Amino acid sequence: RSPPTPSPNLGSLFLSLGSNNTAASHLRALTLHPHVAGTKANSLTAAYVLHAFSSLSIPSHITPYSVLLSYPVHRSLSLSAGPGRAAKPFSLTQDTYPSDPYARAAAEVTPTFFAYSASGSVSAEAVYANYGREEDFAYLASRGVDVAGKVALARYGRIHCEDIVHNARAAGAAAALVYPDPLEYGGPAGEGTFPDSRWLPPSGVQVGSLFRGVGDPTTPMWASSEGCERVSVEDAMATDDMPGIPALPVSARDAAEIQRVLGGAEAPAGWQGRDGSPAYRLGPGPAVLNLTYQGNDTMATIENVFAVIEGAEEPDRYVILGNHRDAWTFGAADPNSGTAAMIELAQRFSMLQKQGWRPRRTIIFCSWDAEEYGLTGSTEWVEENREMLSSRAVAYLNIDVSVVGPVLLPSTTPQLDELLLETMKLVQDPDNSSQTVYDAWVKSNASPKIQRLGNGGSDYAAFVQHVGIPSTNLIFGEGPGYPVYHSLYDDFVWVEKFADPGFRRHVAAASIWGIMALRLADEEIIPFDYMSYTTELEAYTKVVEKETEGTAVSCSPLYNSIRALKKAATKVNSERKEIQRELSSKQLSKGSMKIRGLNDRLMQAERAFTNREGIFKQAWYKHLIYGPSEQNDWDTASYPGIADAIATARSSNTSASWKLVQHEVHRVARAVAQASAVLSGSLT
Amino acid sequence: RSPPTPSPNLGSLFLSLGSNNTAASHLRALTLHPHVAGTKANSLTAAYVLHAFSSLSIPSHITPYSVLLSYPVHRSLSLSAGPGRAAKPFSLTQDTYPSDPYARAAAEVTPTFFAYSASGSVSAEAVYANYGREEDFAYLASRGVDVAGKVALARYGRIHCEDIVHNARAAGAAAALVYPDPLEYGGPAGEGTFPDSRWLPPSGVQVGSLFRGVGDPTTPMWASSEGCERVSVEDAMATDDMPGIPALPVSARDAAEIQRVLGGAEAPAGWQGRDGSPAYRLGPGPAVLNLTYQGNDTMATIENVFAVIEGAEEPDRYVILGNHRDAWTFGAADPNSGTAAMIELAQRFSMLQKQGWRPRRTIIFCSWDAEEYGLTGSTEWVEENREMLSSRAVAYLNIDVSVVGPVLLPSTTPQLDELLLETMKLVQDPDNSSQTVYDAWVKSNASPKIQRLGNGGSDYAAFVQHVGIPSTNLIFGEGPGYPVYHSLYDDFVWVEKFADPGFRRHVAAASIWGIMALRLADEEIIPFDYMSYTTELEAYTKVVEKETEGTAVSCSPLYNSIRALKKAATKVNSERKEIQRELSSKQLSKGSMKIRGLNDRLMQAERAFTNREGIFKQAWYKHLIYGPSEQNDWDTASYPGIADAIATARSSNTSASWKLVQHEVHRVARAVAQASAVLSGSLT
Ligand SMILES: [Ca+2]
Ligand SMILES: [Ca+2]
Ligand SMILES: [Zn+2]
Ligand SMILES: [Zn+2]
Ligand SMILES: [Zn+2]
Ligand SMILES: [Zn+2]
Repeated sequence: RSPPTPSPNLGSLFLSLGSNNTAASHLRALTLHPHVAGTKANSLTAAYVLHAFSSLSIPSHITPYSVLLSYPVHRSLSLSAGPGRAAKPFSLTQDTYPSDPYARAAAEVTPTFFAYSASGSVSAEAVYANYGREEDFAYLASRGVDVAGKVALARYGRIHCEDIVHNARAAGAAAALVYPDPLEYGGPAGEGTFPDSRWLPPSGVQVGSLFRGVGDPTTPMWASSEGCERVSVEDAMATDDMPGIPALPVSARDAAEIQRVLGGAEAPAGWQGRDGSPAYRLGPGPAVLNLTYQGNDTMATIENVFAVIEGAEEPDRYVILGNHRDAWTFGAADPNSGTAAMIELAQRFSMLQKQGWRPRRTIIFCSWDAEEYGLTGSTEWVEENREMLSSRAVAYLNIDVSVVGPVLLPSTTPQLDELLLETMKLVQDPDNSSQTVYDAWVKSNASPKIQRLGNGGSDYAAFVQHVGIPSTNLIFGEGPGYPVYHSLYDDFVWVEKFADPGFRRHVAAASIWGIMALRLADEEIIPFDYMSYTTELEAYTKVVEKETEGTAVSCSPLYNSIRALKKAATKVNSERKEIQRELSSKQLSKGSMKIRGLNDRLMQAERAFTNREGIFKQAWYKHLIYGPSEQNDWDTASYPGIADAIATARSSNTSASWKLVQHEVHRVARAVAQASAVLSGSLT
Repeated sequence: RSPPTPSPNLGSLFLSLGSNNTAASHLRALTLHPHVAGTKANSLTAAYVLHAFSSLSIPSHITPYSVLLSYPVHRSLSLSAGPGRAAKPFSLTQDTYPSDPYARAAAEVTPTFFAYSASGSVSAEAVYANYGREEDFAYLASRGVDVAGKVALARYGRIHCEDIVHNARAAGAAAALVYPDPLEYGGPAGEGTFPDSRWLPPSGVQVGSLFRGVGDPTTPMWASSEGCERVSVEDAMATDDMPGIPALPVSARDAAEIQRVLGGAEAPAGWQGRDGSPAYRLGPGPAVLNLTYQGNDTMATIENVFAVIEGAEEPDRYVILGNHRDAWTFGAADPNSGTAAMIELAQRFSMLQKQGWRPRRTIIFCSWDAEEYGLTGSTEWVEENREMLSSRAVAYLNIDVSVVGPVLLPSTTPQLDELLLETMKLVQDPDNSSQTVYDAWVKSNASPKIQRLGNGGSDYAAFVQHVGIPSTNLIFGEGPGYPVYHSLYDDFVWVEKFADPGFRRHVAAASIWGIMALRLADEEIIPFDYMSYTTELEAYTKVVEKETEGTAVSCSPLYNSIRALKKAATKVNSERKEIQRELSSKQLSKGSMKIRGLNDRLMQAERAFTNREGIFKQAWYKHLIYGPSEQNDWDTASYPGIADAIATARSSNTSASWKLVQHEVHRVARAVAQASAVLSGSLT
């Protein structure tokens, strides 16, 4: 591969301009107060970000949407050791600590709750449901523990709260509580908790949203534009994507109290807590929980902030950088470590501009709102601008939580793998100047793997899964998640003390993000390499082959289409070399239609992985390679349609259901075939 | 509007090169033998067309597909005057005439039949069902005439045979016969019939296909590529898009014999025949029909022929010219008057090439196969190349029947209106050198109207309705249809004597087709004008408003989006002027990215009228402005989703059903809003 343009000079200059102080000061300013979506406090952060971009002379604007959000009005929870016994109320508050600089602001934090929880009162025996997975409820049933009408107590650690509550409801539970078990969130017993260590204090609560859909629940499949069609709030709350039962997040301390009065059989080993903690029992009862939740599901205004550096040669091609801004509490790591990095990055671009740089393509910064409620700000914007993005977007580069640990954990769609790895080899490890980010990544893991973007983890979902735009997601972390996630303790102190003392990781994140953006925006030929896609697809297909062993399902249509894609990728890579040769020998001008044509193919090939009808039963999800499957327990999170079909076929095991698996294999094969036609640029 | 490029010189040169002899000789050669899709004879026409293009040094190739076609094996029909009475068999053949040069070849004609008819034997009383519309069967019911188990006899003239048979089956008929009534096909009583006049002889039969879907029935929604997924023939034949009952087309002569022994009440005035013909009665009986049909629904190979003139500056932008080649019989008017015009046109382009011309964009000629069976050749190709066409096709220009009369009857998507009208003003009326084609069109009609492309009339359907490509369809005709349509008599003699003596209309058709193609392929800025679209949309919306008067349905979302489209169209038109100014003053080069960017917007805006989920219940149809509605009785053939929702709401008249009308209005409004965003090139 020929050496990357833009000129090494521009890249080095960009890297040299990084400023940890800038990142730190923006992070502090953004996290002085909690700023949940739809509140005045979060509107002030929008104004802050807008002002930050304007101060850098980057034209910026706010696009608001009116969407359905959800806030707590009244919560109460009490526990008794059995029917007729005295009930002891829980305080449902997270403790501050002496000398906590945010103790006063903590009073402004929204009381712990689950967005979109049903309102109501439940008084019933408790049942312990481990991680709240389908298999956990199935285990309870197998042990004769009836969950119907009970309050299910489950812990975080394997699946998202919305899925835990959904599973609880499916099992018949009348209400659900979800807590962060010290096993996952409390650290080794001796280490203490925040502020003494990075671990979650016993009173820490992880809040979240129980909406299993995407975007504003009142505008499924379309944008919440002014004057748009709306599903009524009542109807929106009544869909199966909503929890339908009251639920609350609780602390490990409260959960331990409940466990203490829970009877029934002892839970199995995989259900127990940290070494040394009392044994957990399954219930039901005799512990009785009295839960009351009153929520306010209401239309509120959210604000996406945009800043646009217009491209000099191809203003109609977009390299989009996004990060959300709303937070459940202070949002220091999630998401404003990303916002701080974005502003720091914008500052460097602004300095490059002063030195005369103007990108070939347009660069767009997006500060999304209401990500926490259901990727809402980004989803509504992508829906509103769908056709424009489909014809113009080169790539979407997301950062959500930017820094919670020392090692970059990157995710991309595969044609960006090569660019990502080259960039990681270019940027210094913020913790060790003798090695690169790439070296640190390789050392951190026996088999370092780039993750993919098939889940609903952050704002890339609409870009990848709804429109088919090559995307990436970056996070400096330490294993999956981090202990104070979505709790009161995700504040500036935690980041400064434990996530990034010195803020050099923030700068490294911005450097990786920025170098990728620079190359995508400036290089004559878009730096996509589809060979990596073929390797990935082959691996996913092998999984399908294994999962369908002994059935009539054949994967050869898929292998055939992957072969075609490989041929196209090879062809395109040699065309790229040829054009680069012509460019460097001045046979071709930088503005040539030939270059534009090749770039169009590189850009549009990813679109072709989407299918207009979408995934069966989940029509919003158009991407047939990456997307959420209803029951995907493979770690690839790929081929969601095939995964669901296999799960259905396994349980029904009819020949018709296995035929549907074959149909899904064909659908994916056709999408891959369309993509390879676009990439090679040939009609039949 | 500034004067059209390409240089007037090129246009005049092109017009001057027209050759009626070329058109005539190709038409004669193509129609020596009947050539139904999937037969050896039609494969020979593919070779002929391929050779014609090759001889002109235009690179060409054949793309074959294996698809489900349908042929007759055995047919018999007899009539008795009542149960137990002697049955007299019909010959089911079309007469040749003394001196008929095609009398010998007539023996090669496929016996009259309906493709995809169910096989079986029915012996039952006859019922007369007028035009076979839903309202006709409703009228029979209102008169107490029970169609159940009977053989329905209906006539052509209002709806297609596949819909007649579908309605007959829905009414409970056991079989159906369809005939061309002299009222519509026989001409004024004194004029005689072919070969003495253009009118259909009494033994003439109009054959057709009963498949109500699109493309190969074994590959719904996807292409019949090699090794592709297939629905079994059995399953394909069992869908509701198939007739499900035996049916035959019969002649007016045979129908008259049936009428003669039909009893029951006299049919009302609108159901009667030509002046002077005996009165038609409704039945049922006493006439009894014994019908046996044995068909062969079988996989066969079809061949699309392509010829490609590669663009010099933008090879990846396509101007596509298409016409089908397969015919039910000789196919002189339908479709080879079009094929002859296409080859004549290609000859002129070839001469231009010899003079050094090379188009800016790629021009593709397509000779489609199996149009008669269900637009099959074009549909499979568009499905196979969907993503490529979606990102690259500028326009699709269709001709099917090119010449059956003196006046051009054009159809387009509205952004092509202006180009079409300008072209019509440039080309001389082939019948009157003192006026243009435009003048003749205006004189022929009190209010000449460009037709739209919402129906399944020919091969534009997949381009417009499945992908959203600006399209046009041209025919020199005389009112709707022509009398020998789909009969034995659609041969060279008929065209030479009655459709185009002298073949100057063929040349004029090629001239209009060619000038449009030249301008679309050569002009720096694609000659689309979206203002006409806004006028059309306003008119359709007024119809919706009228149809929903007195309900809660509001059209203001639609009007708002049309206003936005108007603003975008105005903006784009002034940008066009500005660029043209810059081009003529040499401030801008012809290869500038700025031009490509504007063209991308013009090209992609039509795509945005499609919705990925498609029309409700008809997911293949993605275009929300033009497409077939299940029950569209408005003459606009527009807003198919709204039309169907209104029809449903009218019959159920629940508030939920009217809410669905509002939902469909919103869907269209959103598509128009996406289109205006693409056209104006602005993100929110
Ligand atoms: Ca929405
Ligand atoms: Ca098909
Ligand atoms: Zn986040
Ligand atoms: Zn979060
Ligand atoms: Zn035709
Ligand atoms: Zn036809």
